[in-house]
Amino acid sequence: MAAAAGLRALGAKGSGWLQRGPWAPLTTGFCSRGPAGIGRPEPGPRPTIARQRDGIRNIILSDPKRRNALSLAMLKSLQSDILHEAESQDLKVIIISAEGPVFSSGHDLKELTDEQGPEYHAEVFQTCSEVMMLIQSHPVPIIAMVNGLATAAGCQLVASCDIAVASDKSSFATPGVNIGLFCSTPAVALGRAVPRKVALEMLFTGEPISAQEALLHGLLSRVVPEERLEEETMRIARKVASQSRPVLALGKAAFYRQLTQDLRTAYHLTSQTMVDNLGLPDGQEGIKAFLQKRKPIWSH
Amino acid sequence: MAAAAGLRALGAKGSGWLQRGPWAPLTTGFCSRGPAGIGRPEPGPRPTIARQRDGIRNIILSDPKRRNALSLAMLKSLQSDILHEAESQDLKVIIISAEGPVFSSGHDLKELTDEQGPEYHAEVFQTCSEVMMLIQSHPVPIIAMVNGLATAAGCQLVASCDIAVASDKSSFATPGVNIGLFCSTPAVALGRAVPRKVALEMLFTGEPISAQEALLHGLLSRVVPEERLEEETMRIARKVASQSRPVLALGKAAFYRQLTQDLRTAYHLTSQTMVDNLGLPDGQEGIKAFLQKRKPIWSH
Amino acid sequence: MAAAAGLRALGAKGSGWLQRGPWAPLTTGFCSRGPAGIGRPEPGPRPTIARQRDGIRNIILSDPKRRNALSLAMLKSLQSDILHEAESQDLKVIIISAEGPVFSSGHDLKELTDEQGPEYHAEVFQTCSEVMMLIQSHPVPIIAMVNGLATAAGCQLVASCDIAVASDKSSFATPGVNIGLFCSTPAVALGRAVPRKVALEMLFTGEPISAQEALLHGLLSRVVPEERLEEETMRIARKVASQSRPVLALGKAAFYRQLTQDLRTAYHLTSQTMVDNLGLPDGQEGIKAFLQKRKPIWSH
Repeated sequence: MAAAAGLRALGAKGSGWLQRGPWAPLTTGFCSRGPAGIGRPEPGPRPTIARQRDGIRNIILSDPKRRNALSLAMLKSLQSDILHEAESQDLKVIIISAEGPVFSSGHDLKELTDEQGPEYHAEVFQTCSEVMMLIQSHPVPIIAMVNGLATAAGCQLVASCDIAVASDKSSFATPGVNIGLFCSTPAVALGRAVPRKVALEMLFTGEPISAQEALLHGLLSRVVPEERLEEETMRIARKVASQSRPVLALGKAAFYRQLTQDLRTAYHLTSQTMVDNLGLPDGQEGIKAFLQKRKPIWSH
Repeated sequence: MAAAAGLRALGAKGSGWLQRGPWAPLTTGFCSRGPAGIGRPEPGPRPTIARQRDGIRNIILSDPKRRNALSLAMLKSLQSDILHEAESQDLKVIIISAEGPVFSSGHDLKELTDEQGPEYHAEVFQTCSEVMMLIQSHPVPIIAMVNGLATAAGCQLVASCDIAVASDKSSFATPGVNIGLFCSTPAVALGRAVPRKVALEMLFTGEPISAQEALLHGLLSRVVPEERLEEETMRIARKVASQSRPVLALGKAAFYRQLTQDLRTAYHLTSQTMVDNLGLPDGQEGIKAFLQKRKPIWSH
Repeated sequence: MAAAAGLRALGAKGSGWLQRGPWAPLTTGFCSRGPAGIGRPEPGPRPTIARQRDGIRNIILSDPKRRNALSLAMLKSLQSDILHEAESQDLKVIIISAEGPVFSSGHDLKELTDEQGPEYHAEVFQTCSEVMMLIQSHPVPIIAMVNGLATAAGCQLVASCDIAVASDKSSFATPGVNIGLFCSTPAVALGRAVPRKVALEMLFTGEPISAQEALLHGLLSRVVPEERLEEETMRIARKVASQSRPVLALGKAAFYRQLTQDLRTAYHLTSQTMVDNLGLPDGQEGIKAFLQKRKPIWSH
């Protein structure tokens, strides 16, 4: 697990919120792409960029020339950035965004020709599935911030995040069927996010839905005008980052576990989760602070 | 089972539909809170009020000074009012509403401090879970009528009802995370009512959603202007109360049972339910009445 | 299996898109209702009409005088038309529509009186359930095109299709409860399409929802003005028909199978589906065509 090399500092970019304000460079381990500096960093071997400030980690799909295709390299880079010091109490929330007009176009088709062969194909889909499941099993909330087109495994990535905020110009599609490759793995995440009729029309026709439709049907939690996308995403991220990390971790794990259980089992599990939560130092601190009408001071 | 003491007559209240028209007092057993009279009744030991007319039982969370907190006493009172003569053919539908600007603020935090200890905490969550499951297993439809803020276990109560009608000024939140207590048990009901991204944004940020958003995402079945809330809820309740009680009971039980089954098992179960339904006296009476173009006369 | 007699040619009808353009008559086996000709065909023993062109099969519920009731004869006729040459590579997509102002009123109540008895009732519900499950297990996508009222098992039929397009004047209800027969089998499909509160209000009150509400809640994938219904449905059908049939069949089967699995199992299944898909001739042809910037030529 090469997670230690997972995060790199972001050099100053042409636009966007990442370079506004004093984003401190991370540890050397994070800065594997070379020194941050004025101007666009030279393209390196790793196609994601990550940095972290105030508990908020930003991971940016950063291969716009290839429409941020989820190549095996991109998937491993993303996985590494998500896993990097996942247990650190300094990490509170992760935002996944993308550079350029396409959030992500999904798998890199050059990796799926028969020259590569079924074993390589299997590795691609297995790695992709692991990244998507990692998002759910990760201890901190993970937010997708989408500004543009997200297709196929790119749409799957949005559907797999805990929260998804998009600009109103964004759109979403699973167009694999157009090139004879049905979006079966994206359908796992899509089919758990939107009603099945919406999912099937997308899967069978390959046609996109708008951000508003995606919100209507549950693929997004929020849609905002493009100029407010970063502000709104950061507002949510800061709110999440202000919470107790152990409490969020406990709650997130319980949420996904109970979701597929029968009602009695789900209540049995979560009632125990509530008791465990109250046994955490932050559980008692929060209630005491509330009753004493003061701000809680979390243990981390 | 203290159900016999579960329902009390409502004294005349300052406003609201309950005192409009000739609501007959219920049996003595229901009137444990003291005589109904002019003016607000004195606060008694039980924090819910219930009365019944024309097959419609109204249960009112009636502790507005404590924002209708679901204390253990409130939960037991609610449970008792729901269970009271549940098998009586005179009961057709239950409405749960609340007094004051807050529908319910969820658990009483004073019951969750470490002075009480984990055993007491466990009793609180277990009782709460039993009430929520009771709503689903109860033979008659249960409607939430919401006019105001419903948070945490209060939001869970709305999500657990079969039908939920709210005024457009209502809002819904699971803010436990703000005080270090993730709303894990409310998440069971919430996660089965709204898309997971909506649920997780609510759970991770603690921020409220409006009634319109709640309708959009499936937490409510209907939103109306405040001045039409009682009228619309009563219209639905009367429609439900006009149906055959044994038919509703059979159908409600089958609905929840099939919902988590695989498709083939679900159709096997419900096909048998249909045959059983036709074997009920009301099943044949309804069809005969329809074919004879007359109103059915139900057996109860 | 009387599928060979399942499809009949449509005679020229008074209105509608089916007779526009050169719809070739199908094989003799399809034309069991008599010769196509000017004017309305004489009512025959089979209450559905079907014909096929350019890979698109149209099945029309064609008993408007009885509000297209899903009698046992109608269900068997529909089943036969769906199953007819289901494995033929010439069939790409099926549209189910209806003649007259009512899409379908559900079961024929004359078949559900106690004169028929529980064995006959069981056959009706079992056949109906088989048709609904057949829609999901069928290798090609099946689209409901709704222009009018769809109630009870008629609403179930819409909910069971893969895609559902409706005119804005359409409406949907499960009113069985009004005649003492709770829509328990329709609830299987309805409860998997819309949020449970919406489903339960429909089931408990019997009241209809509009096409817009049905879209909002996931029962439909698309709503259009009545005058654009055929055009929009045909646009979707043609798009689906332009895809590779084996790819669609693989993807459709995987979609429904993974939907009820836990996440890990679902990704394991669908990752294998992706690899299998790439192993299909059309899988490699599609990717090659894309990389070579040309239109793919499917094997069928």
